[in-house]
Amino acid sequence: MKKLLDTDKGSETTVAELARHLGCPYEGEGATQLTGVADLAGAGEGELVFMAHRKFRPLLENTLAAAVILSPEEPCDRIPIIRSSDPQRSFVEAQGYFFTPYRPEPGIHPSALVAETARIGPEVSVGAYAVVSDDVEIGAGTVIHPFVSIYPGVKVGRDCIIHSQVSLRENVTLGRGIILHNGVVIGADGFGYLPPEDGSRAKIPQQGTVVIEDDVEIGANSTVDRGTLGATVIRRGVKIDNLVQIAHNVEIGENSVVMAQVGIAGSSRTGKNVILAGQVGIPDHIDIGDNAIIAAKTGVTKNIPANTMVSGSPHLDIQVWRKAWAAIPHLYDLLKEVKQIKKKLESLE
Amino acid sequence: MKKLLDTDKGSETTVAELARHLGCPYEGEGATQLTGVADLAGAGEGELVFMAHRKFRPLLENTLAAAVILSPEEPCDRIPIIRSSDPQRSFVEAQGYFFTPYRPEPGIHPSALVAETARIGPEVSVGAYAVVSDDVEIGAGTVIHPFVSIYPGVKVGRDCIIHSQVSLRENVTLGRGIILHNGVVIGADGFGYLPPEDGSRAKIPQQGTVVIEDDVEIGANSTVDRGTLGATVIRRGVKIDNLVQIAHNVEIGENSVVMAQVGIAGSSRTGKNVILAGQVGIPDHIDIGDNAIIAAKTGVTKNIPANTMVSGSPHLDIQVWRKAWAAIPHLYDLLKEVKQIKKKLESLE
Amino acid sequence: MKKLLDTDKGSETTVAELARHLGCPYEGEGATQLTGVADLAGAGEGELVFMAHRKFRPLLENTLAAAVILSPEEPCDRIPIIRSSDPQRSFVEAQGYFFTPYRPEPGIHPSALVAETARIGPEVSVGAYAVVSDDVEIGAGTVIHPFVSIYPGVKVGRDCIIHSQVSLRENVTLGRGIILHNGVVIGADGFGYLPPEDGSRAKIPQQGTVVIEDDVEIGANSTVDRGTLGATVIRRGVKIDNLVQIAHNVEIGENSVVMAQVGIAGSSRTGKNVILAGQVGIPDHIDIGDNAIIAAKTGVTKNIPANTMVSGSPHLDIQVWRKAWAAIPHLYDLLKEVKQIKKKLESLE
Repeated sequence: MKKLLDTDKGSETTVAELARHLGCPYEGEGATQLTGVADLAGAGEGELVFMAHRKFRPLLENTLAAAVILSPEEPCDRIPIIRSSDPQRSFVEAQGYFFTPYRPEPGIHPSALVAETARIGPEVSVGAYAVVSDDVEIGAGTVIHPFVSIYPGVKVGRDCIIHSQVSLRENVTLGRGIILHNGVVIGADGFGYLPPEDGSRAKIPQQGTVVIEDDVEIGANSTVDRGTLGATVIRRGVKIDNLVQIAHNVEIGENSVVMAQVGIAGSSRTGKNVILAGQVGIPDHIDIGDNAIIAAKTGVTKNIPANTMVSGSPHLDIQVWRKAWAAIPHLYDLLKEVKQIKKKLESLE
Repeated sequence: MKKLLDTDKGSETTVAELARHLGCPYEGEGATQLTGVADLAGAGEGELVFMAHRKFRPLLENTLAAAVILSPEEPCDRIPIIRSSDPQRSFVEAQGYFFTPYRPEPGIHPSALVAETARIGPEVSVGAYAVVSDDVEIGAGTVIHPFVSIYPGVKVGRDCIIHSQVSLRENVTLGRGIILHNGVVIGADGFGYLPPEDGSRAKIPQQGTVVIEDDVEIGANSTVDRGTLGATVIRRGVKIDNLVQIAHNVEIGENSVVMAQVGIAGSSRTGKNVILAGQVGIPDHIDIGDNAIIAAKTGVTKNIPANTMVSGSPHLDIQVWRKAWAAIPHLYDLLKEVKQIKKKLESLE
Repeated sequence: MKKLLDTDKGSETTVAELARHLGCPYEGEGATQLTGVADLAGAGEGELVFMAHRKFRPLLENTLAAAVILSPEEPCDRIPIIRSSDPQRSFVEAQGYFFTPYRPEPGIHPSALVAETARIGPEVSVGAYAVVSDDVEIGAGTVIHPFVSIYPGVKVGRDCIIHSQVSLRENVTLGRGIILHNGVVIGADGFGYLPPEDGSRAKIPQQGTVVIEDDVEIGANSTVDRGTLGATVIRRGVKIDNLVQIAHNVEIGENSVVMAQVGIAGSSRTGKNVILAGQVGIPDHIDIGDNAIIAAKTGVTKNIPANTMVSGSPHLDIQVWRKAWAAIPHLYDLLKEVKQIKKKLESLE
């Protein structure tokens, strides 16, 4: 892997030092130098790897890597081993040792337009050509990248990262530790119209807002509409992927995961720790219970109980769905068989 | 609901005054003060609500609201009632009494770059860092928010609202009263290539345009491509939700509704008052008749007659689809039954 | 079709001259004047058309066009004919004769912010309010439109066109001849978290990058995430439509076509010349062989061999899928029939 110079800390360490840093034992030559991390398939000299699954053993046996993080029982006699009961978690810690994500310096760029009535906390970075309107609050340590458009009355908490081209519409509220990737739109109008009169549809004013709680991350070009009345709410710890649509007055429960291109219509709610896989569609006014898992491309049609998994469009319980879909390739032959059976029956009668 | 101070008119009124304003009779204490509107679940003191459906009666019986809009026959003895044959429509009118959507002042921000050859109507607002290129026309009363990028030759009619991060590509034409939410792209190149030669695909020039008629609203991050030759056309009164894709040379008929994440491929057309529910996909060169309804997630495969409803992928008439999908969960057992029947038949023969 | 004045070259020619330019023979009046091209349905006086398919003969017989490009065997006695064994390809060449896509002049706009450490090639155009950060390289002849946000360490090759509102995140690399339409995001963080501890999910650092090879085109508001480790790679000649999601560490093979609203999850790979039709979903760690065709809305569930076509969700071989879906509308009646058969059998026993 090509080195990413400006985000590489330039740290060097040894297997022994890094193992101590991670609180893990090691085996083999502790003085082995480490300069970074890499994935098992692409690792070069001086790099640390981990093995996510046993099926990758052939890669391990041919790696150029300098050391590997392995679970306690896993053998390897080629290179030094750092032992961890959770190799991936230890590897991610090791990543933090060598790598810092790009982050502009604190300070307000001279080309940024910050309204006099805006309150900007300490150590905030406001990038070139960012627009911060009246009555906006930005918490300490937050980074606002170029071309972020913050409408009046918005509140952004501490330690957020708002990437370029994000729009934060009037009066929306963000907690702390939130990451919004490029092009995210928070608080555009919900999609609401009165039934047509003379064909045309009158707009229902969208006077509500959006509340995003702490530690939420939202992927590039995703959209979260404001409530019609009241708020659209994204609870603490929710992770949302790219190109996701969250409609007015939706509530996504704590620590839920919403994968790419999911769409959730007005006033639907999910419990905690729900997983919505890619391209799922949820109509309006649906309730999804805690810990439910909605498989990719599912078209939900009614409430989903807690701790269940569903798939299909319209959705079915995962067990029912699996059986039905195992049968579908046989459906055509089944039709022919039943025809034959009918003939035989007639001849028997 | 938290008050949105800068968009709240600060109006106060009484039940009697508001009822007169709405042209409705009222029952109960006409002098009751009203300070705003809210939804039935979240209403507080001084707020007006309406009941969308009888199933919400328990909420009505416990509301803190000051008054309610109800249909003529609906009883309520707790709070003053404004009577309306269409409670939702009257409620939306009442919303307009208390609430004004955020709207920047007219005027051209000193940081906006407006070409000398651009013609800007009276009472137009051009926001910070907006770019208005050569030969652009912007009609009276239109609002251009920050970071809107208007390429040369674009025409925007009167009383439009173009939110931040919108791109209007060269020569596209917008009518009057149009709302484009943040991140919308109008007029990017259609997706057209010649069949491959030596593997690579030559680009077909996209020299057409986009025409958007009056009173269209388009949701955040939706995209409408320009025609290859001729125009992509969005007819009067069409409402398009977020993250919708409209390809080159598509025509969407008057007053149609296109919900989130719908995709429509090249040269397809819809009639008037068509409803495309969320995540529908329509291939190229398809005709959809007036008043057709395409259910969520439908994969259309051929023309849809007027006044029909379809669902499924590939689509089926809604009645056929409902029967088939009622049967699918039984398919697995059906396979087993037919096997048993065959055995029995053999033993009978 | 309305003329697009500023992108119309104002060229005039004759049938004979244009035929010579295209290297094609012509029939009829060679002195006939041509002023542009149009589609068969909308052509006016002086315009050149072609006939894409015989079903459009009625249009040809009524066209106002001045001349037509036809394949050798196709008759027409109304207007001059330019003969071509590939009429569409010749027509596209003719388009280039009359039409130039809009393109700003070279030069760096005074409002653009270009870091001192950025290296800008000759004949580059950097538009108003573009931000070009430290250590960025931009190759000769490339066009950067307004509000493009280029993070540090980005490399853009020669002759690229980067439209307004695009974000290029830190350290991504673009080859030459690339077109990125408005709102594209290259290099936002991949969607990766450790399994939850105490409910919350720790972010996996996304320290990889994106590599886009020559002659790639990416449609409006599409997103290509950076690798977790290593790179997400879009190979030479790939064409990607609007609102497509490409996750971390994906690789799209040479000359593949990815239509609108497709989503591809982490670490999946496609071979060369693959076609992914609209709204296809591909989960993580999937391999798709060369020349495979994935029909619209397919939900891929496992690896797809080269030179095959699949459809459905979960996907099936196209032949199996066609048979199954031909049978599905009969499923409901089948259930009833089997019930009757069982009764008859019981009465026979």
